[in-house]
Amino acid sequence: MKIKGIVASAAHLPLAPASVDARDVQPDDVRIDILYCGVCHSDLHLARNEWGVSQYPMLPGHEIVGRVRETGHQVSRFKAGDLVGVGVMVDSCGHCAACAGAEEQYCEAGFTPTYNGKDRYTGGTTWGGYAEGIVVDSKFVVSVPENLELSGVAPLLCAGVTVWSPLRHWNVKAGDKVGVVGLGGLGHMAVKLASALGAEVTLFTTSPQKGADAIRLGAKSVVVSTDAKQMADAANTLDLILDCVAAPHDLDAYLSTLKTNGHLVLVGIPDSRHPAPDVTPMVFRRLSISGTSIGSIRETQEVLDFCGQHNITADIELIKGNQIEDAFARMLKGDVKYRFVIDINNTDF
Amino acid sequence: MKIKGIVASAAHLPLAPASVDARDVQPDDVRIDILYCGVCHSDLHLARNEWGVSQYPMLPGHEIVGRVRETGHQVSRFKAGDLVGVGVMVDSCGHCAACAGAEEQYCEAGFTPTYNGKDRYTGGTTWGGYAEGIVVDSKFVVSVPENLELSGVAPLLCAGVTVWSPLRHWNVKAGDKVGVVGLGGLGHMAVKLASALGAEVTLFTTSPQKGADAIRLGAKSVVVSTDAKQMADAANTLDLILDCVAAPHDLDAYLSTLKTNGHLVLVGIPDSRHPAPDVTPMVFRRLSISGTSIGSIRETQEVLDFCGQHNITADIELIKGNQIEDAFARMLKGDVKYRFVIDINNTDF
Repeated sequence: MKIKGIVASAAHLPLAPASVDARDVQPDDVRIDILYCGVCHSDLHLARNEWGVSQYPMLPGHEIVGRVRETGHQVSRFKAGDLVGVGVMVDSCGHCAACAGAEEQYCEAGFTPTYNGKDRYTGGTTWGGYAEGIVVDSKFVVSVPENLELSGVAPLLCAGVTVWSPLRHWNVKAGDKVGVVGLGGLGHMAVKLASALGAEVTLFTTSPQKGADAIRLGAKSVVVSTDAKQMADAANTLDLILDCVAAPHDLDAYLSTLKTNGHLVLVGIPDSRHPAPDVTPMVFRRLSISGTSIGSIRETQEVLDFCGQHNITADIELIKGNQIEDAFARMLKGDVKYRFVIDINNTDF
Repeated sequence: MKIKGIVASAAHLPLAPASVDARDVQPDDVRIDILYCGVCHSDLHLARNEWGVSQYPMLPGHEIVGRVRETGHQVSRFKAGDLVGVGVMVDSCGHCAACAGAEEQYCEAGFTPTYNGKDRYTGGTTWGGYAEGIVVDSKFVVSVPENLELSGVAPLLCAGVTVWSPLRHWNVKAGDKVGVVGLGGLGHMAVKLASALGAEVTLFTTSPQKGADAIRLGAKSVVVSTDAKQMADAANTLDLILDCVAAPHDLDAYLSTLKTNGHLVLVGIPDSRHPAPDVTPMVFRRLSISGTSIGSIRETQEVLDFCGQHNITADIELIKGNQIEDAFARMLKGDVKYRFVIDINNTDF
């Protein structure tokens, strides 16, 4: 079927309205009328082919909230009108150790990305959420609580679950001391979610003016990471740090703030490597540096349920589809609090 | 009291017999007649002041096996004649979070090293095991099973527990796939202990001629780490790697051999930093790089008990005290299988 969206037709051209050929609704599929779609940094990288893996035309977007319009005849979990979400994945191999363990994000054959991916069923392309609709295998569709402001829910599907997954994997609980590095799309969700879990959150930032906002979002303290005195005062205080900064930076400074057995968890991948960390404190305090990638479908449902219970959404700026290039330009300057979300019903396709 | 040992009197002078002033037996102390003392690489570094922290005179040695000669009047756990061991630590603060959690090796105030340390009780110097005897707080003394070849027990007190602690901390169990990097003093114990725990052990080495020995010690397979084909074949196969090589080396190659959720655990501290690792596979497979430092007193007792049950000792070369300088010279060339141990009863002081 034809679906209208905001499409990248080449790396150097602005996104513009166009139609794509989506797959027809299969027996296990759900067709969704999209309400909102968040704008992730990866959308910008992929639209511009900055990672060298882009296929055109491309229809970006993987922070999708909408209502079910139609279901395949084998789908019992959803019905027309249900409020649902789709995140970064729309399929996986289903039988590797990771899939068997409900960690599809680590599928050994590679999960199928929501857009710019190869559809395992049709062999065609997958199309994302800057669109009026999407057709997705129901196993990769999650339920969205009805009580939340929906535009702010969209970023939970990628930014939210990407920080939720490590908070859960490393078992963050009430009273834990959690650091968050960087107050952007991911970082602001990490502050909200970790503090809602009962952790005492310290926000590390190079921008002192972000301090007040971090406190408003739930942080207990703010450390300006360029201030040696503040960093020294934070030494040996934290159980876990979610480092949400993708640019190369000094990891030693953050290792110094971890207590024995602490974990520095990297959420982003820099264009060039971080400077080599000093393993001395890692050995003497049994510290770890880890990576983490998005979250599973189970965790995505879990973070949505948690946000419904705690009335948590992302802080967003709502735009229309034709403002996407301006949004990309502002994102490059870090000028967004804290996520752009496309209002699909107010977008001309 | 005076105790005779093999003493370093300055960084540039060879070790030689001399006496030191040990503390008298305190109410909680045990005085031990030493039978064997292992020769750890750190003895060499400290005797030569290569870490810049050495105090002279110095009496090295922290892989100590002997029999109790005398106990303080508050000691009920040991009696004269008991077979006992002393490892890397002889005291700690006793009240920090690490000590409270029975992880004295991570004592926040710093544990008291067995030698070249400041005695928390007397304010004087601590004296190690290249000696006829040692006086130690009984809390830092462990029981040694009677059924083992005692010369091969000595290295369990440092090399053994240093690899045992991470095997236990990361919960290695039967069927797990464990890599060991480097077949030296620590590596050969890692192969023995991990395989005795039921893990399938892969030994990584740059020396193909070590392969047969690794298999004899319990490894299931050997990978020559300089052979790109062998490394590629090992990709995505391991749950945990104990990296026992202290020289700076490429960590990416080992990360590639880990399965999703795998751990690369560094046992050594290089003189200069390892090249910066690529975090991309760490993010996409949730890998971690961690450090680990020796082991607790509880773990030291545990590894001795385990070795007693499984009849495990270190492979050693027995020397007399006056051969220590030759032993140091051979250690610098990596020419030891796999630990020198000083036969105290055959040493002239």
